Amino acid sequence: MGTKQSIPGGLTRRQAATALAAWAMTSALPRARAQTTELFTAADVAYAQSLRERGLKDTQAYALVESLVTEVGARAAGSPNDARAVQWALARLRQLGLANVRAEPVPLRAWQRGPAQARLTAPYPHTLVMTALGNSVGTPPQGLEAEVAYYADLQALKADDSERPRGRLVFIDQKTDRTRDGSGYGRAVAARSMGAVEAARRGAVAVVIRSIGTDHDRIAHTGAMRYDAQVAQIPAFAVSVPDADLIARLHARGLVPRLQVSLQSQSGVVATSHNVIGEVPGTDLAEQVVLIGAHLDSWDVGHGALDDGAGVAIVTAAARLLMEGGRRPRRTVRVVLFANEENGFDGANAYGEKYQGVKHQLIGESDFGAGRVWRLAGRARPEAVPVFTAMGGVLAPLGIELAEGPALNQGSPGPDAGVLMRRHGWPAIALTQDGTGYFDVHHTENDTLDKIDATQLAQNVSAWAVVAWLAAQAPVDFAPLPPG
Amino acid sequence: MGTKQSIPGGLTRRQAATALAAWAMTSALPRARAQTTELFTAADVAYAQSLRERGLKDTQAYALVESLVTEVGARAAGSPNDARAVQWALARLRQLGLANVRAEPVPLRAWQRGPAQARLTAPYPHTLVMTALGNSVGTPPQGLEAEVAYYADLQALKADDSERPRGRLVFIDQKTDRTRDGSGYGRAVAARSMGAVEAARRGAVAVVIRSIGTDHDRIAHTGAMRYDAQVAQIPAFAVSVPDADLIARLHARGLVPRLQVSLQSQSGVVATSHNVIGEVPGTDLAEQVVLIGAHLDSWDVGHGALDDGAGVAIVTAAARLLMEGGRRPRRTVRVVLFANEENGFDGANAYGEKYQGVKHQLIGESDFGAGRVWRLAGRARPEAVPVFTAMGGVLAPLGIELAEGPALNQGSPGPDAGVLMRRHGWPAIALTQDGTGYFDVHHTENDTLDKIDATQLAQNVSAWAVVAWLAAQAPVDFAPLPPG
Repeated sequence: MGTKQSIPGGLTRRQAATALAAWAMTSALPRARAQTTELFTAADVAYAQSLRERGLKDTQAYALVESLVTEVGARAAGSPNDARAVQWALARLRQLGLANVRAEPVPLRAWQRGPAQARLTAPYPHTLVMTALGNSVGTPPQGLEAEVAYYADLQALKADDSERPRGRLVFIDQKTDRTRDGSGYGRAVAARSMGAVEAARRGAVAVVIRSIGTDHDRIAHTGAMRYDAQVAQIPAFAVSVPDADLIARLHARGLVPRLQVSLQSQSGVVATSHNVIGEVPGTDLAEQVVLIGAHLDSWDVGHGALDDGAGVAIVTAAARLLMEGGRRPRRTVRVVLFANEENGFDGANAYGEKYQGVKHQLIGESDFGAGRVWRLAGRARPEAVPVFTAMGGVLAPLGIELAEGPALNQGSPGPDAGVLMRRHGWPAIALTQDGTGYFDVHHTENDTLDKIDATQLAQNVSAWAVVAWLAAQAPVDFAPLPPG
Repeated sequence: MGTKQSIPGGLTRRQAATALAAWAMTSALPRARAQTTELFTAADVAYAQSLRERGLKDTQAYALVESLVTEVGARAAGSPNDARAVQWALARLRQLGLANVRAEPVPLRAWQRGPAQARLTAPYPHTLVMTALGNSVGTPPQGLEAEVAYYADLQALKADDSERPRGRLVFIDQKTDRTRDGSGYGRAVAARSMGAVEAARRGAVAVVIRSIGTDHDRIAHTGAMRYDAQVAQIPAFAVSVPDADLIARLHARGLVPRLQVSLQSQSGVVATSHNVIGEVPGTDLAEQVVLIGAHLDSWDVGHGALDDGAGVAIVTAAARLLMEGGRRPRRTVRVVLFANEENGFDGANAYGEKYQGVKHQLIGESDFGAGRVWRLAGRARPEAVPVFTAMGGVLAPLGIELAEGPALNQGSPGPDAGVLMRRHGWPAIALTQDGTGYFDVHHTENDTLDKIDATQLAQNVSAWAVVAWLAAQAPVDFAPLPPG
């Protein structure tokens, strides 16, 4: 302590002292010693602590996600179930006492999954467990069949300037590493999003990838992919990890598997979804917004429990804590349940367009499953960084650490919030969840309620309530963001 | 030690002393102290120990199962893949140097799975992950739809003499407990095998069960069910555990789910499979057989890696150890890879008919996945029980214990071996594997190579080689079985 090197977050000594003061307040010191810091009044900090403790006892979040997946189920953007999810959300936000509850239309062009199947036809008949990737075009009605051209990963495909992919079905055996912070997914996911473009560029008739996931289940992972207007659109799908292993073992034997696939889908279906919004009204700074978000839509394949029923439940329960706590925040805390995060960010885009003139103090999103939060990082003007440190002080008893060094102010919020941060320069917060097991079930049929732990969910509620409260009370503006 | 109560297996003091002598030989005593017991020569025990040590270094079993699931895949009895599995097995047994390698025809009536799907139609549309149970009749071509009548377990259904099931689709939410010895499965499986009969007796139009499995994957477990000639045959299928949870949660809310199902299948398809046999020829007692078996067929849904590619690999690799060890057994050790264990025991029945006149010293079967062996129990005339104890002595360093008390001579061998034991009174051995995780993947699409641990497989090889050798050398006849 005390040396420059040991001060986390690259803070000045004075900022660090402030942060330490906030931190000290969270420990078991006699109340008399809890003093007003330059940032927060003692009452505000004490209230944050009480939110934290009440959050840990929360049962509302689990009840919400249980209700959503039981009464609505999967809810692909633009589908009838998505419309039912919007009604569900409106009813729940109202029931929980939030103010200004409303659904705001989000026009979108939906992609609709149709029947799909794939099988090996050589060296012997074998049915593959597969799923179309989001946005994939269909095959001809009778399907297509081709030899497999094996690539260990996307890089190997990109490096191949031979004719091998031409007329073949390119298989990308990209592995996804299990990591706590999702970086393994981050490194692998381009095989899903860009595989079709790279394969089509080389004349392939279709692309199939090893599921971008860390499990070993015969369950394939879907997820969005995209095309390049300059390159032919070819069908794209994923097979389960054990099926990918099988293809790899056949390849390793020098055999050339043949694969038959038929895949139906519809792109550009005109539909409407809604962002659902509810608020904890602010007081003296009510026109400023602290946005805590999640996305209401899910992929069609699972129940959307972790992705992102959990996030919906967490931020809604956190707002309810703020609503019922007896004190009103200075700024307005706004829950936004975004439409169509999964395949287009239409909800985020619509929100940004509508509210671009509104001052957003902070935006955050819970969209990384239901694991406990373990790290906080923000993105704000440097003068506001001590607020993140102060937040970290209150959150430390939850096992939440501050991102270290410059990373403390390089937080990358959830996907919708990320879109808004980049487009509108709104300050952001990232409460990073433990994603060690998340990519076992992410974007699969296996995304169901039984994978959610109610205790870890409550820890999330606790963290979001604290962060929203302190952002709403902060005496400093978080905007404008530093460049970069 | 020494008191009657502490002697395992209900042995006499003299038997126990013999067993202890055998046991002592396995410990690190100087070789000079290893003496001939009444049961085995020191050379036979030393050879058993060398088999044990070589077995632990085995890599053949993993290579075999890898080859089977990669080059053949799933192999439902009577299917073209089953025929390929027979060819595969013949080639492998010959390659490994076994003698008298042959395929013996097994006529059977196969059940063939057709397309099947089920979905909730109320309270909202939701696609269920399901699989037809083996032997299920199909629905009418257009499918059928009915309200769900919920039962927490088979017992609850049996206890219901109301009209509630009539015209409805009976749902049995039978849970399967996770246990090491498979007893949880044993307690639950009647819901699968008998559910249709109990539901049809009460006028139900179909029966759907919670998968008999311990996992929480959106993967349904198949398995055999049967009908009663006195009762209408209704379609029977299983849904995945998370889907069963969903139905249960809807039921708990007082909602009555409606379910639409269409299921195609064909029963009684005339087909031929084969038992594949290979031998380690005996010497002075060559006409007597020590049978170590497994089943070559698998359900169609997975790759048949654990069920029972692992067993095929284990007993084959054990026989190879015996073949290559330099010494020949007194009795013939016969590997039998049974046809159609999964849905009819046709291979076991055909084997029994053909070889009923042959003296079988001992029969055993490896068919409980790929987990390590942790317990030995036999079934023989009382005079032979000390042999089991002596086997236990050699196996103890592998972490294998003897079943305690009367259970030592109440072993229940694998399914085919069990059929033969009951029908022909042949003595039997059970090497119980750790089945803690087995029912996560048993009878599912998830039964794939990646769930097999090569080290645990080698421990199995080691145990089977020891047991087969000592049974082949034993100076006592194991038959006839005691009554009961």
